[in-house]
Amino acid sequence: MRIALIASPFISVPPKRYGGTELFIAQLADGLTRLGIDVVVYTNGESRVNAEIRWLYAKDDWPIEGELYASLKDLNHTSWAINDCWREVDIIHLNNAPGLVFSRMCGPRMLYTLHHPHLPTLTSFYAGFPNVEYVSISNFQKEREPLNRIRTIHHGIDLAQYPLQTEKAEYLSFLGRIAPAKGVHSAIEIAKRSGIPLKIGGEVQPLFRDYFDTQIKPHIDGKFIEYIGEADLAMKNELLGKSMAMLFPIEWDEPFGLVLVEAMATGTPVIAFPGGSVAEIVQGGISGFVCSGVEDAVAHVRTVRAIDPASVRAYTQENFSVERMVGDYLALYLEMFGEATLVGDNSARRQAAA
Amino acid sequence: MRIALIASPFISVPPKRYGGTELFIAQLADGLTRLGIDVVVYTNGESRVNAEIRWLYAKDDWPIEGELYASLKDLNHTSWAINDCWREVDIIHLNNAPGLVFSRMCGPRMLYTLHHPHLPTLTSFYAGFPNVEYVSISNFQKEREPLNRIRTIHHGIDLAQYPLQTEKAEYLSFLGRIAPAKGVHSAIEIAKRSGIPLKIGGEVQPLFRDYFDTQIKPHIDGKFIEYIGEADLAMKNELLGKSMAMLFPIEWDEPFGLVLVEAMATGTPVIAFPGGSVAEIVQGGISGFVCSGVEDAVAHVRTVRAIDPASVRAYTQENFSVERMVGDYLALYLEMFGEATLVGDNSARRQAAA
Repeated sequence: MRIALIASPFISVPPKRYGGTELFIAQLADGLTRLGIDVVVYTNGESRVNAEIRWLYAKDDWPIEGELYASLKDLNHTSWAINDCWREVDIIHLNNAPGLVFSRMCGPRMLYTLHHPHLPTLTSFYAGFPNVEYVSISNFQKEREPLNRIRTIHHGIDLAQYPLQTEKAEYLSFLGRIAPAKGVHSAIEIAKRSGIPLKIGGEVQPLFRDYFDTQIKPHIDGKFIEYIGEADLAMKNELLGKSMAMLFPIEWDEPFGLVLVEAMATGTPVIAFPGGSVAEIVQGGISGFVCSGVEDAVAHVRTVRAIDPASVRAYTQENFSVERMVGDYLALYLEMFGEATLVGDNSARRQAAA
Repeated sequence: MRIALIASPFISVPPKRYGGTELFIAQLADGLTRLGIDVVVYTNGESRVNAEIRWLYAKDDWPIEGELYASLKDLNHTSWAINDCWREVDIIHLNNAPGLVFSRMCGPRMLYTLHHPHLPTLTSFYAGFPNVEYVSISNFQKEREPLNRIRTIHHGIDLAQYPLQTEKAEYLSFLGRIAPAKGVHSAIEIAKRSGIPLKIGGEVQPLFRDYFDTQIKPHIDGKFIEYIGEADLAMKNELLGKSMAMLFPIEWDEPFGLVLVEAMATGTPVIAFPGGSVAEIVQGGISGFVCSGVEDAVAHVRTVRAIDPASVRAYTQENFSVERMVGDYLALYLEMFGEATLVGDNSARRQAAA
C-alpha cells in the first residue's frame, strides 16, 4: 500500500516555526514510515521528513502575498501533486481544500483531514465531494460538518519530546498567541485571584499589539506576572512541565488545542474554559478541569494538586500519542484500501495489472 | 467535433446586464451552432443560449460574496464541468483560470481565452500549463504573456444589432463606466475646446461616485454636456450612431475595448487616446484617430467628418464581426483537433473506439 500525503506548498514539513498542519503531516509520515508503509509527501523543497518527498516549489513562502496568488499557487501545486501520484498510489491524503475536486475523477481513494475552523463556505464545498473520506480533528468539529463519511481522529504528539515532570512548582502557566480569543487577560485574573504567580509564553502578533499593550503588559511585573516571550521546545517543557497547572481560558471554538496535550504530556493538568475541542481533551479530575468561568477556575486552582502528574501523563499517553494517531489513520487507510479492492477501482486495477 | 465552452457559474450566458465574458461565450456558442458544430456550454441554470447548456448552480450569483466563496464555487463548478465533458468532447474551451490545472491530465485538448487584464500572478500561473492553447484578445495583451502557444483572436460583435447610420448629428458621444480611467473628464474638455456638444452614457459606480460628483456633474447642463445614464442596446445605437464621433480618451490599458467596435459598427468614427488594444481597433483615417492628447483630439474632431460612415462600417464588418471571430476560433479548434488526432490523444482514441 502506497500513501500520498499532500501538504500545501507554503510551509515546509515539518515547519521551521508556525505550521500546525505541517507538524501533523511530518509526524504522520514519520509514524507510517516506521510501520513500514510506503509514503510520499508532496510539500516544498525545504522539507526534511522521514519519507520520500516530492515538490514543485523549492522554497518556503510564508506569510502568503495575497489571496489570488495563494489560491492559484496552492491549486497549481496540488493539481500537479495529484497528477503525479495518480497512477502510483492507493490513497491520497489531502490536507488542503483544492485537491478535493479531483475526487470526481476515477483515481485513488481520497481522505481529507479538516484542519480549518468551521466556515459555511468550506462546509458547502466539502459536501460536493461525497466520495471522500473526511476526518475531523474533534467531535466538536465533526458535529458542524454534515458529511456522510466523516469520523474523528484526534491529533497526537510525540510524548518522548515532552518528558513527565513529577515535581511541580508554585506557579501557573499560559502558552499561546497573545490574543483576546486565547483569554490571556482571564489567565491573569485567575492568577491574581488565586494568589498564585503566572508565567506567560507566546507570540505577540502585530494584529494584537494593542491588546498586549493595554490588557496584558500593564500586569507584567516580572515576578507575579511574568512574560517569557515565544517558547521553543525546551522552554515549553520548562514552562509547562514545572507549573502546577496550565491555564487555558479560551474564548473561541478551537478545533483542536494541541497545547493542552503538550501540557498534559508533562504531567501538568489543565484548567480550561469550555469551547471547541476542550471537553474532549481535558478529562475532568483526570487531566484537569473544564471550568465555567474565572471564579470556578480559581476554585480548581486550589484543588488541582490533588491530580497525580503520572496519571495525567498516562491518560495523555493512552489518548493523544502520535502512535495512537498514526494507528487510527492506518486503520482508516486499510479500510479504504479494502473497499477500493472490493469495488474494483484504482488500487484493484493496479493489483490486477501487477 | 464536439466543443465544451466553460463559463464561470456567477453570471448567466448571455449576461442580463454586466458580463463581457458571458456575452462573448453566448456569441461564440450561437455562431458555432449556426455552423453546425456540436457545442455544450457549462454555465448556470439561468442561461439561454442557442446550444446545449449544462449547469451545477441554478441561479446567477453576482456580485460575488467574497474571495474564498467565489474561488471555491468557481473551482467546484469548473471541475464538475470538466469531469462531465471529459470523455465526450474533443476540445475544452476555458474562460476562467482554475480549469487550467486539468490540462496536466490526459484528456481533451484545452484552449483558454484570456479575458483578464495582465496580472503577474496569473501570468506565472498560465506558464505552468504549456499544453494549453492560449488566445489573447489583443496583441497588446499577447506581448505581456510570455507563453509558447498563444495567438490573438480579436472579439467581434453581431453587426446586425448595430445598423449603419449614415446621417450624423452635430454632437460627440461618450459611452462607458463613469470612472477616471475611462477619461470622461478628458471627453468633456475635448468637447468644450471643440465647441461641439457631448452626450455621455454609462453607469456611475458607487466606487467612483466622488469622481462623478466633483469632476463630471458640475459640467452637465443638459444641453452642451448631457448625461443620459446607463444605455441599453437601443440607446447605444441612438447615442453612438447619430454622433459625428465617439470619444475614447482612455487612461488605462484595456485588453479589448468592445465599445470601440460598437461605435464603428454604426459608422461612427472614434477619436481615441492610445492604450491597450486601441491602436489595433482604431485604424487611423479609416475608423477614427488615435490622438496624443486633448489638443490633438480637438484637431481631429474638426476633420473627422471627412471619414465616410459606410467605410467605417465596412472596416468593422471585415475585422470585428462575430462571424470573423467565430471563424477564427473554429479554425483553431480544427487545428487542435487535427493535432490531437495525429498525436493519438483523447479525440483519436474516441474515434478509434467509434
